Amino acid sequence: MNIIIAPDSFKGSLSAVEVSNYIEMGIRQAFRDVKTIKLPVGDGGEGTMDTLVAATGGTKKCISVTGPLGNKVNATYGVLGDGITCVIEMATASGLHLVPNGQLSPLTTTTYGTGELIKHALDEGYKSFVIGLGGSATNDGGAGMLQALGMKLQNQKGEEIKFGGGELNNIHHINLSHFDRRIKECKFLIASDVQNPLIGPTGASHVFGPQKGASKEEVIILDENLVHWANMIEATTSITLHEKAGAGAAGGIGGAFQAFFPVEFQRGVDVVLDFIKLNEYLNDAHLVITGEGKVDSQTVYGKTPLGVAQRAKLKNVPTIIIAGSIGKGFESLYEHGVVSVNSIINHPMNLEEAILKAGELLVSTSEQVVRTFFYNEIKN
Amino acid sequence: MNIIIAPDSFKGSLSAVEVSNYIEMGIRQAFRDVKTIKLPVGDGGEGTMDTLVAATGGTKKCISVTGPLGNKVNATYGVLGDGITCVIEMATASGLHLVPNGQLSPLTTTTYGTGELIKHALDEGYKSFVIGLGGSATNDGGAGMLQALGMKLQNQKGEEIKFGGGELNNIHHINLSHFDRRIKECKFLIASDVQNPLIGPTGASHVFGPQKGASKEEVIILDENLVHWANMIEATTSITLHEKAGAGAAGGIGGAFQAFFPVEFQRGVDVVLDFIKLNEYLNDAHLVITGEGKVDSQTVYGKTPLGVAQRAKLKNVPTIIIAGSIGKGFESLYEHGVVSVNSIINHPMNLEEAILKAGELLVSTSEQVVRTFFYNEIKN
Repeated sequence: MNIIIAPDSFKGSLSAVEVSNYIEMGIRQAFRDVKTIKLPVGDGGEGTMDTLVAATGGTKKCISVTGPLGNKVNATYGVLGDGITCVIEMATASGLHLVPNGQLSPLTTTTYGTGELIKHALDEGYKSFVIGLGGSATNDGGAGMLQALGMKLQNQKGEEIKFGGGELNNIHHINLSHFDRRIKECKFLIASDVQNPLIGPTGASHVFGPQKGASKEEVIILDENLVHWANMIEATTSITLHEKAGAGAAGGIGGAFQAFFPVEFQRGVDVVLDFIKLNEYLNDAHLVITGEGKVDSQTVYGKTPLGVAQRAKLKNVPTIIIAGSIGKGFESLYEHGVVSVNSIINHPMNLEEAILKAGELLVSTSEQVVRTFFYNEIKN
Repeated sequence: MNIIIAPDSFKGSLSAVEVSNYIEMGIRQAFRDVKTIKLPVGDGGEGTMDTLVAATGGTKKCISVTGPLGNKVNATYGVLGDGITCVIEMATASGLHLVPNGQLSPLTTTTYGTGELIKHALDEGYKSFVIGLGGSATNDGGAGMLQALGMKLQNQKGEEIKFGGGELNNIHHINLSHFDRRIKECKFLIASDVQNPLIGPTGASHVFGPQKGASKEEVIILDENLVHWANMIEATTSITLHEKAGAGAAGGIGGAFQAFFPVEFQRGVDVVLDFIKLNEYLNDAHLVITGEGKVDSQTVYGKTPLGVAQRAKLKNVPTIIIAGSIGKGFESLYEHGVVSVNSIINHPMNLEEAILKAGELLVSTSEQVVRTFFYNEIKN
C-alpha cells in the first residue's frame, strides 16, 4: 500500500512538516506493510515560500528593504531547487505582521519593499517568479512596488507622490519610461485565492480594508483613490482593472501585476501542488491523507485539503482529511473525492490542551483512520 | 451490507437506545444500501433489567420492599418476554441510590429487600431468575436476603440478629429449616463482573466498603464479621466462601448465592448479549458498531464494547467502537477484534458542550467512520 501524506500546517500548533511526521507515525502503528510519501503542503498563503524551498531543496536570501511603514525591515525570498525560480511572499516585505498594533494605516502603508525584492532578484539574474499574495498591510494598488521598479507616479507639479493608498488620488501622470525593462522578459506566476475586483463594494478597500486598520471613512477614501488609480492606468495602458477579478488581491497589488507584468494567476494551493509534484506521486497511491487545523464550510474555497482531494479524485485516489477541529458545512467536500473528515480531539478538552497534545492526538487518530480504511489489508 | 448497532449508554448523556438511534442516523447519511440491526446493550450493571425487558418485550412489576436502611421503598423487577424469567437488579431494593447522602452505613444496611423481591417472584410462580449485582449499599454478606427468604440467623440467645454487616458477628446458629424450599427448584443466573473473594485485603469490605461509607475502622469490623459469617456458613453447609472468587460481589451477597442457591455466575455483558441474541444476528453481519461514554484501559475488563467485540471476532465480524471520550490504554482492544476506536468530539469543547451536542456529534462521527470503512462499497 502507498499512502501520500499531504497536509497543511495546523496553525498555531504544528507545522506542515510536523503534521506529516505525526501522521506517518500513526500509519506505521496501524500498518507495517506500507510505503508513505510525505509532501507537506501550504495553501499558497503564509509559509508557501518555506514549503516550496524545502520541497525543492532550494535556498533563501535575506535583504534589507522598505517596510510597509517606510522604515527598513529584513525580508527573505527563496530560490527553488531548480536554481532559476524565485519565490517571493509579499508579506515578508509588506505584511501586516510588520506593523505594530495601533499603527495600522492603509492610507500610508506601501508595497515598495515588495518591489525592492523583485528588483534584487532581477539584479541577480532571475527571470522566473512565483509571487505569493496575502497577509499584506497595504491598500496602495501596488503603486509602491511599481515605484521601486522605476515607474514614476507624478502629481500635478511633476513630483513623485508619497507612499500609501491615501496618495493615489494625487497621481496626475504615470511615467513608464524608467520602469524596469527586464520585467517583460520574465514569467510571473501569481499565487492568489482572491477573486475580488479592484474597486466597489466587493473590492479591495471595502472587503479587506477594515482588517488592515481602515475606518469606515478611510475605506471610502481608499476606494475612491483606487478608482482614480484604475482610471489613470486605463488611460496609460488601455487596461481596465476596475471590475477585473483578482485585481483586488492584497490591497490592489493584483491589479498592478495584471496591468504591468507578464503574469499568470493560479490558486495558491495549485501552485504548491504543482511544485511538489503531487500528480506524479498520485499515480501509484492507494490513499491520500491531508489535513489542516480547522476544516469547515470555508475549506471548499481553495484550501489545501480541497486542492489535494481534487487532484486525487482525478486519479481515482481516495482522500481522508484529519483536522484539529471540524466546523459546520464540511460535507460538500465529499463531492471532491473526500472519503471522511476526522478530528484529532478524542475527549472533551480546551484549546490549550488540544494544542499541547496535538502531536500525540494526531498519531492516534491517524492510526484509527488507517485501521478503519485498510481493515481488510491489515487483517490479512 | 448488514451493520449491527450494539452500544451501551453514554452515561450522563444518552441512553443505549438513543445511542443506537443516532448511530443509525449517521450510517444512513453515509450509505443507503444498508440494513441496520439495533441491539442496545447494557453491561449487566445498572440498567440491565430495562435493557432485557425492552429487548424481549417483557413487563415490569413494582412492589413495596424493605430498603437498605430498613424503611419501605418501591422496587421493580422485570419479567422477560418469555413469560418465565424474572430479572432482578439488587440495586432496586438495596442500592446506594436509596441512601441519602450522609446516611451511608454498611454496618446497618441490609439486603432484606432483595430477598423480598425474590420471594414475591417465587410466590408468583417464577422459577428462572437473572440477578444483577452491583450498585449495592450493603456489606451484609447477603444475610438480609436470606432472612427474607426464611433463614433464621440466631444469636446466642436464639434471637434473630438485626440488619447489617455490623451484626454478623452475633450469629451463633444458622437455622435452615424455614429457608424457602422452592429455591432449590429454580435456576439463578447471576450477572456479576466482580471476581473478588469474600474476605481479606481484596475482599468485599476492603475493596468496596469505603465507597459505601465505611471508615477505616469499620472496614476492619466488616471484614472480621464476614470471616465469622463465612465460618458459620462453612460449619453449616461445608461450603468455604472465604477465598472463593465472586463471593465478595455486592457486599458478599455473591457468597450467599454461592452457598445457598442453585446458581450460575456469568459476566454481566454476556448475560445481556445472550438474551438479545447477538450471536444469531452476527451470522449475517458485515460490521458491528458498539460504543460507550468512555473507552480506555478499563474497557478490556468486561465492559460492553469488549463483550460485543469478542463475540463478533468469533464470527469473523469486525467491530468499530465509537466513544464519547477516549482515554489511555485502549489499544489492547485490538486483540479482541476491534478495528478502531473513534471519539465523537470534533473540536475543543468542555464536557457540558459534549453532553449537550452528543446526539449530533454521534451522528456525524458514525457517518465518517462508516464512509471510511465502507469506502469501496459506497463509491460503487
